Amino acid sequence: MSSDVQLTSPSGPRRCSIAGALEVVGDRWALLVVRELGMGARRFDAIQRNTGAPRDVLTARLRKLEDRGILRREPYSEHPPRFEYLLTDAGAALAPILLTLREWGDRYVYPDDPPLVLEHSCGQAFHSRITCVACHQPITGEDLTVVDNQR
Amino acid sequence: MSSDVQLTSPSGPRRCSIAGALEVVGDRWALLVVRELGMGARRFDAIQRNTGAPRDVLTARLRKLEDRGILRREPYSEHPPRFEYLLTDAGAALAPILLTLREWGDRYVYPDDPPLVLEHSCGQAFHSRITCVACHQPITGEDLTVVDNQR
Repeated sequence: MSSDVQLTSPSGPRRCSIAGALEVVGDRWALLVVRELGMGARRFDAIQRNTGAPRDVLTARLRKLEDRGILRREPYSEHPPRFEYLLTDAGAALAPILLTLREWGDRYVYPDDPPLVLEHSCGQAFHSRITCVACHQPITGEDLTVVDNQR
Repeated sequence: MSSDVQLTSPSGPRRCSIAGALEVVGDRWALLVVRELGMGARRFDAIQRNTGAPRDVLTARLRKLEDRGILRREPYSEHPPRFEYLLTDAGAALAPILLTLREWGDRYVYPDDPPLVLEHSCGQAFHSRITCVACHQPITGEDLTVVDNQR
C-alpha cells in the first residue's frame, strides 16, 4: 500500500478499521474460538481441547466475545446449568480473516505439509484469494492507495 | 464450515495453519506494526505514534517479528545506531489478513464512518472479497468442508 496522506500524527494512533477489528478479536485465543465455533464445536470442553487454551483464559475470552456480539450462549442443560456457544452473524463474518490466516500459515508455517485441508463446493481443494469487489481482479497490495485516513 | 472429521481429540489442540499463523502474528500490536510498514512508516517513532503501542511492548514485538522473518532492520544512522524496519516477503504476504480485518471492521466496528478509505488501481473504492482460487467464486464459509485435519 502506498499513501497519499500524512503517515504520522501528533494527535494519536491512526484511526482505522484494522485496529477496530483487532480490539475485538486481536488475540490468538479469540480467533481460535471463532474457528472452533465455525467448525461446529459448541461446548466449553471441546473448544478447550481443540484450541489448547488454558481454561481460565478461555472463560474470559468467551465472555468478552459474547459481550462484543461475536457469539451467543444457549442453555443445553438446566441442572446443572450448561451452555453451548454459537456464532452471531458478526462472528460468522470473521470467516474471511480465518481463511486468509490459514492461507498464510499454509505457505509460511507449514509449506510442506498443510495440516487443515478444505474443499470448496466446486469440488476443488480450497485456497483463498483476495479480489476487488468492483473489478473482480486479485489484489497484490501494491495496487492499493490510501485516499483518506480520518484521525 | 462443516466437518467430516472428528472435531475433538484427546491428543491435544487441533493442528492447523490458522493456529500456526496466529503464533507468529496473533496479537494486535504485531499486526498493527505490519500495517504501518505496509503503509510506509519505517521508523520506531512513527510506528509507535501511529499504532499507539507502549514503547517497551513495541520494542519486544519488533524483535519477535524480526526473529520470525516478518521484518528486517536496516541501519540509517551509525552514530547513534538507528534502524529502519522493512517487511520481508513473508511480512508483505500478510496484506490479505489486514484487508479482511479492515473489511470486517468497516462493517461491524465503524459501519457509518469507515476511517480508512482505500482505492484500487481500477479506480474504484477498494473493498475486498474472498474467492476460491480454483473456480473464482466468492466464498460464504458454508461452502467449505474439512476433508483432512492432521493431528
